[in-house]
Amino acid sequence: MLEVTDVTAAGTCCTPLVREPISADEAEQLAQTMKALADPARLRLLSIVAASENTEACVCDLIEPVGLSQPTVSHHLKVLTTAGFLTRSKRGTWAYFKLVPGALDRISQLFVGS
Amino acid sequence: MLEVTDVTAAGTCCTPLVREPISADEAEQLAQTMKALADPARLRLLSIVAASENTEACVCDLIEPVGLSQPTVSHHLKVLTTAGFLTRSKRGTWAYFKLVPGALDRISQLFVGS
Repeated sequence: MLEVTDVTAAGTCCTPLVREPISADEAEQLAQTMKALADPARLRLLSIVAASENTEACVCDLIEPVGLSQPTVSHHLKVLTTAGFLTRSKRGTWAYFKLVPGALDRISQLFVGS
Repeated sequence: MLEVTDVTAAGTCCTPLVREPISADEAEQLAQTMKALADPARLRLLSIVAASENTEACVCDLIEPVGLSQPTVSHHLKVLTTAGFLTRSKRGTWAYFKLVPGALDRISQLFVGS
């Protein structure tokens, strides 16, 4: 696992919530990140990408598993990308989405309990 | 840290998202939990309680730090309690809120990266 100080994904970083009260600014940033995760379709998409080989998946392989339209899936993937969880690259016809290294570990570190 | 299988706070438990895609039902439950965390005031309240002695705080000590009215603070504390992060007990005039053991670790485990 990454050290707390090495986790540098977008957003607030990274003192666990139980260690000291977070500031108002940190809370605002973290709440935005949490909003990206507070949707069942986005959680499923993130989980599918994260569990894929090389933590990368083609958008063409993400539509059927979640049972949503391509525009809806693309919207959710954009939210996850903006929040710093995924990166997008175009190869040929399709877009591929890859998990940002450390992005999930950062969330994990924030919620490590006492 | 708790073993994954020992983390039994309310809601879906506990295979990390990167290990295998979560089911639709698990995603629905987890999204509800994430919604409780997707608010800056609730994150601050949770953090203050979690960082307090014995991970417990009187509601009377939570109002001033977040700069919100008592009814608003009480609403946010109720959301966190319903989501399984806090328990509430009344002692004398005031309500006290205590962190549920393992509740934050459960979230942490879900987002442990590869």
